[in-house]
Parts: sequence; C-alpha cells; structure tokens
Amino acid sequence: MKGKFITLEGGEGCGKSTQSKLLQAYLQAKGIETLLSKEPGGTPEGIVLRQLLVTGDKDKFDPITECLLYYADRRQHLTKLVWPAMNEGKWVISDRYADSTEAYQYYGYNKRIDYATLQNMYQIVAGDFKPDLTLILDMPPEVGMARSFAKAASMESKELRFESRQIDFHNNLRHGFLEIAKREPERCVVINADTDIETLHQRIVKVVEERLKP
Amino acid sequence: MKGKFITLEGGEGCGKSTQSKLLQAYLQAKGIETLLSKEPGGTPEGIVLRQLLVTGDKDKFDPITECLLYYADRRQHLTKLVWPAMNEGKWVISDRYADSTEAYQYYGYNKRIDYATLQNMYQIVAGDFKPDLTLILDMPPEVGMARSFAKAASMESKELRFESRQIDFHNNLRHGFLEIAKREPERCVVINADTDIETLHQRIVKVVEERLKP
Repeated sequence: MKGKFITLEGGEGCGKSTQSKLLQAYLQAKGIETLLSKEPGGTPEGIVLRQLLVTGDKDKFDPITECLLYYADRRQHLTKLVWPAMNEGKWVISDRYADSTEAYQYYGYNKRIDYATLQNMYQIVAGDFKPDLTLILDMPPEVGMARSFAKAASMESKELRFESRQIDFHNNLRHGFLEIAKREPERCVVINADTDIETLHQRIVKVVEERLKP
Repeated sequence: MKGKFITLEGGEGCGKSTQSKLLQAYLQAKGIETLLSKEPGGTPEGIVLRQLLVTGDKDKFDPITECLLYYADRRQHLTKLVWPAMNEGKWVISDRYADSTEAYQYYGYNKRIDYATLQNMYQIVAGDFKPDLTLILDMPPEVGMARSFAKAASMESKELRFESRQIDFHNNLRHGFLEIAKREPERCVVINADTDIETLHQRIVKVVEERLKP
C-alpha cells in the first residue's frame, strides 16, 4: 500500500486524541494527505459498537465478547477506511488500534483471555498487516486518570466504562503497552507523555521524522 | 448442564419464530420451564447488534466483519442467557444459532469466507458446546421469501437486509442447511416446513418427543 498507517496508543488521559490532531496538522502542512481516525468508532457502524463498548456496566461483557466486538470494529475500520485510504496514497493516523485490545483485554484483565485466541483474532481480521509506526504515550496511570475524569466531567461524557476500573487494572495495562513495545521495537516507540501538549508534540514529530521520513 | 438447548434453523419465512412459540407452549404445558430466545438479539446488547446486522445496505459489511458480529452476539447470548438458564435446569429454544451463520455467511456468500475461520470462531465462542437438538425447517426459498416479504410489509419492518439478496443466495443457503444436517445427523433433523402451522407444529413435537423425551 502506498500510504502509511500510524497508531497512537496508551492509557486513559495520556493525550492521544489531542496529539493525533496535532500530528495530522503537521503532516498536512508537509503536503501529505492525512486522515484522522480512531478505534473503536472509525466508521458509521463502528460508532454504534463504540457506544456498546465504552458505556454501561464494566462487567456487561466477558473478555471474549469484548474482543470480538473490538475486532469487528477493527475489520470494518480496515476494510472501509484504512486500506482504501492507504491504497490512494493517504496516510492514516488512528487513535488506538490492536495494541489497545491486547493491553486492555489481555494485560488489563490479568490474562483472563488466552493470548493465542487474541493472536488468532488478529490474523482473521488483519492477516499480516501492521502499522508502520506505533507511538505509545506513557505516563503514570494516576496522572492520566485524573485528566480523563476531568475531561469527561467537562464534556458530560458517559464514556467511562474503563475509567471506572481500579488502579490495578490501569497499572496492568501500562505494563502491557511497555511489554508490547519491548517485543516489537521496530514498530513501537515509547514516548514519555507526562509533559505539556507542545513538548509532547515535538517529541512525536521527532520520532515520526526519524522513522518514516515524511 | 441440566437443561436442554434446542435451535430452530432455516431460511427466511420458514416459520421459525411461530414454531418456536408453539414449541415453548408445548414444553411449558409438560411442566418444563422453557425460555424462548433468538439470535441475533437474545440479550439487550444483542438487540443493538441485531439492528446493525439486519438493516441497511446488503454490502455494508464484508463476510468476516459480519461473522465477528454474529459471534459476539452469540457469545453474549450463551454467557448471559443460555448457559445460566441451562445450569438452572431450564430448557432454551433459540430461533437461529450457529448453523445460520454457516449457512448465510459461508454457503450463502459462495464460500467467500474460509471454513476453518468459521470453525475457529465457533471454538473461541462456544468451545465444545452444541445444541441438544437442531430442527431445520426446510422449504423452497420462493415460498419462504414471499411469506417473509408479506410479513415485513404488514409489520413495516426494515429487517430486510438478507431478503434483498438474489434467489441464488437463498438457494445456496438452503443447500447449506441440508449439508449441515447431513454432516451432523445426531444433532440435526430436517423437517419439511412447506405446510400449515398446525401440521408443522405436530411434526416438530414428534421429533422433540423422539429425540429428547421431555
């Protein structure tokens, strides 16, 4: 495919959506047509799935159901948005992708789902396709959670199904993201996100410039 | 598990929902607590998935996305309704189950999805669990489709995403159901459904009495 696929990953409140927008603006200014998207919810059907996934009681799905829904959303996102755009030479930035499923549903839930099952779902949905670059925005969960609750309160958001989990869960998922980065250093870069918006943007730009030479 | 799981399968308009209700009434009259359910949409979350799946443009999902959504619905149905009820000794009748996914998404779509992928999803979602009895209501697609359109018109239903497909699709899926029955005769019984409601009910009761001795 002619375009590139960049994913931003990390726990709640780490700045993914703000940084995605700033990165899009940076790439557009360089003349690269860049789409901003997200998972779950990057397509009209995905928006319905996102509603199911991020609202309501934290135990309403078991880990397998939850993974199937994330992967259904992912398949729709890839087939209807990401792959067609990349085929036209566009770059796509996605606020979350498969590493989030692994971090939340595998590490976050203390491995209640089988790792092979998760890999199996990835293969069914995406085959050998991988992001060209994954930026893992890392910060202490306490900091991110405080930001996330403040943001949700100001927007009257009900998207707090994961925020409502205990701090252990969030420590597990931070650990999960760092494990993924250690396993796939050619794809993943961990960036310290415990700083101001502009400093973080500059850190991201530096990595994108080095890795993808846009 | 102490209860039994009976599934009704077949193409559009073959009488599954009417016959499910009659069978439930029959079993209840014999003193067996029997739940009536369906796929997709046997749970609150499944109702949202059903809306996504049975309305709208026929090509809005590719076969893999579609299967993932059916299997997410199925997992929710099994974990939240079917298995808990069976553990309490209740019987559950489901209007459609996994054979429909195989008939529609594999045979109906002319095998555009890999059969191993489908089996793989079943294993992830249900392991070795199978219905105790599957009734396949068989009739010529032309007859069922005419019924189905008439019913949808009278109810102003928009659940016509599959009805809008060509007759070839429906012939393929009839063939699919018959293949499944041939492969698993210990679980499946094909019943000629091209008759009136009461006659069909009697045919179903006869099979249930012979097979499950309620």
